[in-house]
Amino acid sequence: MDQLSVLIIHGPNLNLLGRREPEIYGSTTLDEIDACLKERGRLAGSRVVCMQSNHEGLIVDVIQAAVGEHDGLAINPGAYTHTSVAIRDAISACAIPTVEIHMSNIHGRESFRQHSYIAPVAIGQISGFGARSYLLGLDALLAHLRQSALTD
Amino acid sequence: MDQLSVLIIHGPNLNLLGRREPEIYGSTTLDEIDACLKERGRLAGSRVVCMQSNHEGLIVDVIQAAVGEHDGLAINPGAYTHTSVAIRDAISACAIPTVEIHMSNIHGRESFRQHSYIAPVAIGQISGFGARSYLLGLDALLAHLRQSALTD
Amino acid sequence: MDQLSVLIIHGPNLNLLGRREPEIYGSTTLDEIDACLKERGRLAGSRVVCMQSNHEGLIVDVIQAAVGEHDGLAINPGAYTHTSVAIRDAISACAIPTVEIHMSNIHGRESFRQHSYIAPVAIGQISGFGARSYLLGLDALLAHLRQSALTD
Amino acid sequence: MDQLSVLIIHGPNLNLLGRREPEIYGSTTLDEIDACLKERGRLAGSRVVCMQSNHEGLIVDVIQAAVGEHDGLAINPGAYTHTSVAIRDAISACAIPTVEIHMSNIHGRESFRQHSYIAPVAIGQISGFGARSYLLGLDALLAHLRQSALTD
Amino acid sequence: MDQLSVLIIHGPNLNLLGRREPEIYGSTTLDEIDACLKERGRLAGSRVVCMQSNHEGLIVDVIQAAVGEHDGLAINPGAYTHTSVAIRDAISACAIPTVEIHMSNIHGRESFRQHSYIAPVAIGQISGFGARSYLLGLDALLAHLRQSALTD
Amino acid sequence: MDQLSVLIIHGPNLNLLGRREPEIYGSTTLDEIDACLKERGRLAGSRVVCMQSNHEGLIVDVIQAAVGEHDGLAINPGAYTHTSVAIRDAISACAIPTVEIHMSNIHGRESFRQHSYIAPVAIGQISGFGARSYLLGLDALLAHLRQSALTD
Amino acid sequence: MDQLSVLIIHGPNLNLLGRREPEIYGSTTLDEIDACLKERGRLAGSRVVCMQSNHEGLIVDVIQAAVGEHDGLAINPGAYTHTSVAIRDAISACAIPTVEIHMSNIHGRESFRQHSYIAPVAIGQISGFGARSYLLGLDALLAHLRQSALTD
Amino acid sequence: MDQLSVLIIHGPNLNLLGRREPEIYGSTTLDEIDACLKERGRLAGSRVVCMQSNHEGLIVDVIQAAVGEHDGLAINPGAYTHTSVAIRDAISACAIPTVEIHMSNIHGRESFRQHSYIAPVAIGQISGFGARSYLLGLDALLAHLRQSALTD
Amino acid sequence: MDQLSVLIIHGPNLNLLGRREPEIYGSTTLDEIDACLKERGRLAGSRVVCMQSNHEGLIVDVIQAAVGEHDGLAINPGAYTHTSVAIRDAISACAIPTVEIHMSNIHGRESFRQHSYIAPVAIGQISGFGARSYLLGLDALLAHLRQSALTD
Amino acid sequence: MDQLSVLIIHGPNLNLLGRREPEIYGSTTLDEIDACLKERGRLAGSRVVCMQSNHEGLIVDVIQAAVGEHDGLAINPGAYTHTSVAIRDAISACAIPTVEIHMSNIHGRESFRQHSYIAPVAIGQISGFGARSYLLGLDALLAHLRQSALTD
Amino acid sequence: MDQLSVLIIHGPNLNLLGRREPEIYGSTTLDEIDACLKERGRLAGSRVVCMQSNHEGLIVDVIQAAVGEHDGLAINPGAYTHTSVAIRDAISACAIPTVEIHMSNIHGRESFRQHSYIAPVAIGQISGFGARSYLLGLDALLAHLRQSALTD
Amino acid sequence: MDQLSVLIIHGPNLNLLGRREPEIYGSTTLDEIDACLKERGRLAGSRVVCMQSNHEGLIVDVIQAAVGEHDGLAINPGAYTHTSVAIRDAISACAIPTVEIHMSNIHGRESFRQHSYIAPVAIGQISGFGARSYLLGLDALLAHLRQSALTD
Repeated sequence: MDQLSVLIIHGPNLNLLGRREPEIYGSTTLDEIDACLKERGRLAGSRVVCMQSNHEGLIVDVIQAAVGEHDGLAINPGAYTHTSVAIRDAISACAIPTVEIHMSNIHGRESFRQHSYIAPVAIGQISGFGARSYLLGLDALLAHLRQSALTD
Repeated sequence: MDQLSVLIIHGPNLNLLGRREPEIYGSTTLDEIDACLKERGRLAGSRVVCMQSNHEGLIVDVIQAAVGEHDGLAINPGAYTHTSVAIRDAISACAIPTVEIHMSNIHGRESFRQHSYIAPVAIGQISGFGARSYLLGLDALLAHLRQSALTD
Repeated sequence: MDQLSVLIIHGPNLNLLGRREPEIYGSTTLDEIDACLKERGRLAGSRVVCMQSNHEGLIVDVIQAAVGEHDGLAINPGAYTHTSVAIRDAISACAIPTVEIHMSNIHGRESFRQHSYIAPVAIGQISGFGARSYLLGLDALLAHLRQSALTD
Repeated sequence: MDQLSVLIIHGPNLNLLGRREPEIYGSTTLDEIDACLKERGRLAGSRVVCMQSNHEGLIVDVIQAAVGEHDGLAINPGAYTHTSVAIRDAISACAIPTVEIHMSNIHGRESFRQHSYIAPVAIGQISGFGARSYLLGLDALLAHLRQSALTD
Repeated sequence: MDQLSVLIIHGPNLNLLGRREPEIYGSTTLDEIDACLKERGRLAGSRVVCMQSNHEGLIVDVIQAAVGEHDGLAINPGAYTHTSVAIRDAISACAIPTVEIHMSNIHGRESFRQHSYIAPVAIGQISGFGARSYLLGLDALLAHLRQSALTD
Repeated sequence: MDQLSVLIIHGPNLNLLGRREPEIYGSTTLDEIDACLKERGRLAGSRVVCMQSNHEGLIVDVIQAAVGEHDGLAINPGAYTHTSVAIRDAISACAIPTVEIHMSNIHGRESFRQHSYIAPVAIGQISGFGARSYLLGLDALLAHLRQSALTD
Repeated sequence: MDQLSVLIIHGPNLNLLGRREPEIYGSTTLDEIDACLKERGRLAGSRVVCMQSNHEGLIVDVIQAAVGEHDGLAINPGAYTHTSVAIRDAISACAIPTVEIHMSNIHGRESFRQHSYIAPVAIGQISGFGARSYLLGLDALLAHLRQSALTD
Repeated sequence: MDQLSVLIIHGPNLNLLGRREPEIYGSTTLDEIDACLKERGRLAGSRVVCMQSNHEGLIVDVIQAAVGEHDGLAINPGAYTHTSVAIRDAISACAIPTVEIHMSNIHGRESFRQHSYIAPVAIGQISGFGARSYLLGLDALLAHLRQSALTD
Repeated sequence: MDQLSVLIIHGPNLNLLGRREPEIYGSTTLDEIDACLKERGRLAGSRVVCMQSNHEGLIVDVIQAAVGEHDGLAINPGAYTHTSVAIRDAISACAIPTVEIHMSNIHGRESFRQHSYIAPVAIGQISGFGARSYLLGLDALLAHLRQSALTD
Repeated sequence: MDQLSVLIIHGPNLNLLGRREPEIYGSTTLDEIDACLKERGRLAGSRVVCMQSNHEGLIVDVIQAAVGEHDGLAINPGAYTHTSVAIRDAISACAIPTVEIHMSNIHGRESFRQHSYIAPVAIGQISGFGARSYLLGLDALLAHLRQSALTD
Repeated sequence: MDQLSVLIIHGPNLNLLGRREPEIYGSTTLDEIDACLKERGRLAGSRVVCMQSNHEGLIVDVIQAAVGEHDGLAINPGAYTHTSVAIRDAISACAIPTVEIHMSNIHGRESFRQHSYIAPVAIGQISGFGARSYLLGLDALLAHLRQSALTD
Repeated sequence: MDQLSVLIIHGPNLNLLGRREPEIYGSTTLDEIDACLKERGRLAGSRVVCMQSNHEGLIVDVIQAAVGEHDGLAINPGAYTHTSVAIRDAISACAIPTVEIHMSNIHGRESFRQHSYIAPVAIGQISGFGARSYLLGLDALLAHLRQSALTD
């Protein structure tokens, strides 16, 4: 089995991690999370590529471009979780295996944050474990991809 | 009466047409649809210009720029049909005659796809006829523009 | 391929076209629309039969009787769009290819007019182009039927 | 107390002010409003910087970049008022004092315009006074900032 | 001023009046109500014509046929009050001055009976006064028609 | 049978009749309506007493005081139709036969005006006939009271 | 005890049974169901009369005419289950003991099919057992009528 | 074909039958109903086993244990009809053919009793015929099981 | 242009300002706010009259009496914002230019405080700036009145 | 500890107690309830003051005036329970310990009576025990006040 | 009159009282509350029996068993207040006089806690007074039972 | 740091895993999942205890008993996710760190499965990864507990 390649997408405002509201989101920066994810990927024999954008359209572009480039997608759609049908459609149309990640427990926040347009087209969702949600999500994605590879 | 000029806007993910999910959307690519629309426009003595974008803001920019450049607009807003007040406002503010187009029958899909922010500011809506929806939409738009030209 | 036969059904109050509220619905009468549809059908090598009724039950009867008689149905259900499950069931049970037509843009009217019981069982919907909605609907239906005939 | 610096953000379609629908929005252009705001700022001993964009993502970028650059934000989010959780989150995460401005009285318009995602994270909201809403908003913001400066 | 002619339409199940559930609807039959209405009309120098039907489509036919025949319409739509957009559209399209009548106080009954599709296109509504609702409705209609005749 | 006595209550803002918005409510003043009602009552051998108040609490006081003083009540609750449970409870507790009157057709206005707290405790409702609604309401009330008197 | 007479009413589109969509509704025709019901009635010493109509108004007529002719009613209202207040009112006004029958399990279908206007005025409801629903319904109705006859 | 075995489950409070509220539920006790069901099963050559419990969890246990023991299930879930996803999931997971039974007509009671979590996973539902609902349900279940046996 | 006269109305409980909950509403009393408003009015060459009441009916009385006395109205309706159709109707009927003022940001409070009956009949709304909301509201009102005076 | 002083407020229509609808509310008059409450207060060494009003504004006035005069408040808001934000705000702003009392069980009445604006700002609520609700409420309030006094 | 016997039922998680979250629920344990209730019962010449369970089904069993054993029931249904139709039905079927008790003010908590399935079948409800709610509830229940005993 | 002890709770019907519907839930049995979790715990130096129950009340009992016995809880509440306030309250009252686990992606299933009563009181939620959801949940829980131990 070839080396797996995984794309991590961080949605709007996640570039502020560790720089703003540390009492809520902790002091870990997005760069540190990305480094951690890449290292964990490396240990698992996989390539991990990360990007962040505040632009819904650009996230759609990147998901489309991931086809043929990456085997799976782990996305924290941030605010677009609740408003973007376009990102949902991109994931669905590209049929790229996708794990949805949230650092906070969105099910315990404002009611408009409890609905996700992305969830129905994702394999699964992990929410509430802070920066660790990303590591759990990467583990889940890689395990899913390896299992699929075996059964194909 | 001068030659009419019409702008066709394809919203997010429509660039994937013919390349993804052909069993649903058929094997016709967006380029082929555009070629077909231009040829049909040419036969009708009209100019047809096409563009596609995954970016809501860019679509707003393009609609604004169409004023004075084009006589009418045919738009398949894709996922932005259901979430974009900004595109609705652009069409409304620019007062450009607009036809709304959908390849699939949005009225028979998930409930969140059955509401269109665009419809109330459009002349009319055509949905469900696959790539042919575009041709019907172009016909409808050109006929509307010619009739308006006569009565002005 | 044999000559196609198409049934046009006009729902309640559409017999008033051209005779009442011309400032809204124009001065074209239903007879003129029917003549126009028949001529367009003739040019396309197809038979077009038209009927109008204010009676929900009669429209159900007619749809049932269309099986084996007609290859497709173009219906402007008028007020029954929003209230008739019986017409929906007739279309669905008879499995006759159906195009839904509205002269006005129902998506921009009162909220109770924005829901259609018919749309989910139709191929597609055309609304907002006045009498021209019928011509577009006939074109769409004939094209659909011809394409289906080829692929069967 | 140092000179205050304030950022004014105009959301989608506001660049059309004075050029489209003057009967509704008046004939004042956005440039004229900006000039007026800058002059008023100058008289109050403050710096006023203005920008407009149709792009949700770009507005998020700009709000993030305002941290450390500006003391406060006055934003007319236009259509994004009703659809953008991302802009809300940017304001909230950056904790920049923000005044929400609307030229029209959004509380008297379509129901979907009566809900603002921005309002709960703003100091306050001013709506309905046309171009004057901006001047009132600037006054309110500067007064708020000065008062905060005194009490810090 | 010519003699006024008024059409009274009784909707579904009203033919049972006086014959079924007298403890609720009293022992007066529909024929007795009609006789009473005609006599009251005669005294007011007007012609009163009455009909009853259980068929929605027939009621639509009759309303359409009333144009040019009658000056006004008093209708107790019965169960169709709550379900018939077709009757509403007939009244609206024919622009015949219409008074809506209910014997029982529909505002105090099951919630689905508290909404009337007819009310928004009627001059006014009278409900709750038993058979007397018809007499009040006829008075109201004749007075309205006479006043309109004067001001035309 | 003794002479009947009837109380007419006009709710908030109805004192402005004929003085404000004559294009909507006509030029008849409340005093003229009251005079008309009293004269009609006199002709019917009944006493008619009228009052107007903008105060919900005062209207409740007056309804309570009507017990033993008046045989029936005709009330146009104005804005309190839609917000006052207290007036409803007063009518219900005092068990005074009550007719609800509206000059405009409330069923065709804003949705919050289509619900009446008063209707379920009234005999019936008359709406939409302008100043004539009052006369129809007085007729209905007197007829109801006379009939009740006969059957007691 | 005299022989019981029972009326069976089949609502809209049920005449298509066995002729359309046999994979869903089976290959039994309505005539076969009617024959089966009559035979079962005969064995139980009862008369069974059957009718089908696509017309709501005609079904109301027939229910009214059943008074004095039949002892009970078994109705499969089809699509009118969900839209007809008129049929409900006819059953209620005629006070004829009624059993509601559905071949499919309406509680597991589209949400608009899960509400029945008829159920609250019926003795009971049987749904989901295909053609057998009719036999169960006839059994239930006859047993109910015999029990009522005994206790009267 | 082997002898069929059927499990009857009575939900919470049904053990009170015949002992409480006889004016509503009749004087037949649950034991009498069970005896009647067993006798009817015996005549049909089938085994009928009955149980009652007020415990949701125990009902889930029993349904799970029925797999391999019984061929079908007839359940009156009582109050758990409206609140138990666990019983629904047990029926669904065990894939045991299930008929839902209600003695009262739940469609005519409080709105919270009109929704059934069980109905979508049952073959069909019988409600409103008192103790007879059980007999009809047993007949329906046995007939369904025999038919399935034949076609397997 | 004559001197403008403006009426300030403070709704229920606002007389407690500065005396109760200073940590929320600050320590400024209503008298101090009124003095400040009058001074600001004086500087602008305008007359400012202030009143406070806890009585809905009295506020309606006062608005009616303002016609001909005052050129504009600035109202903080307090709790009546969310419950009073009567005050809305008074403003609407009197057609007095009105600015709606809230000290707190009502859009960020309990959901029932996010709806205003007053907003649709006001020029605009200012909320969230504490006592300063009044000054901004007075500025907005005077500017509006002066502009209207010029264009009349 | 000083003698406690408690204010009892009876809302609209409660002055009718014992005089109207005795079959529902019993034959005890409000005076008798007040006497009973005062005696019970006297025995508990506390002062009890009672008032009743049909006027929302007056109740607000009285609550404001209670500050410094009374230690606690027991209020039966009657109809204003469901409509008055002003009374809620008065209780909240005055921070006077408050017990909410209802004679009838409001949770078993019409749905609009099941919501209380007052409950969230009260210590607790007692409903359903007739006149005894007042005694229970007084006990609860005095116990709460004594406990608070001890812990302060 | 014989000695009264009263059953107290504590629902799920109430056994944790005094042991968990003392800052919210106080440090009184359930045993202490029970002792207090028994003593108060003894003083009032009544027997008080207490039980607690986390099992919905067991609570139903216990209520059924209370018939003939106890004269009344005081229940704090805890979480089952909001989800258990089975407990409601048990109370209703057993017709045992029941008082509903809540220590916290459920009307001021999350919206799903503001609805009680139990309230409509209880005499009344007491909520918000901490452990004292139980004492008030016992008083209310005993008084109700004594009064009923007198009037029987 | 002492060895951590973790409790795994499997809710209703999860004992059927691997035995029913393997095409949906796979062929892994609950015993195999438990063995896997215990082994993973052992490797991480932690104790893992597992239990399954179909009884809501028993799950509440077990959670209460976990206090002092276990350091954390991983629960797949199955059907009780959507209906049990009692389990939520147990978790909340016991303040035991809890991870919510779902094998299927509940956000893409029926709407009633998209709401979780448990989520707001859990640290986080993992759903959609089949049996792997348990492993991810255990990892997340152990990491959370270790981190908390360090910071305490």
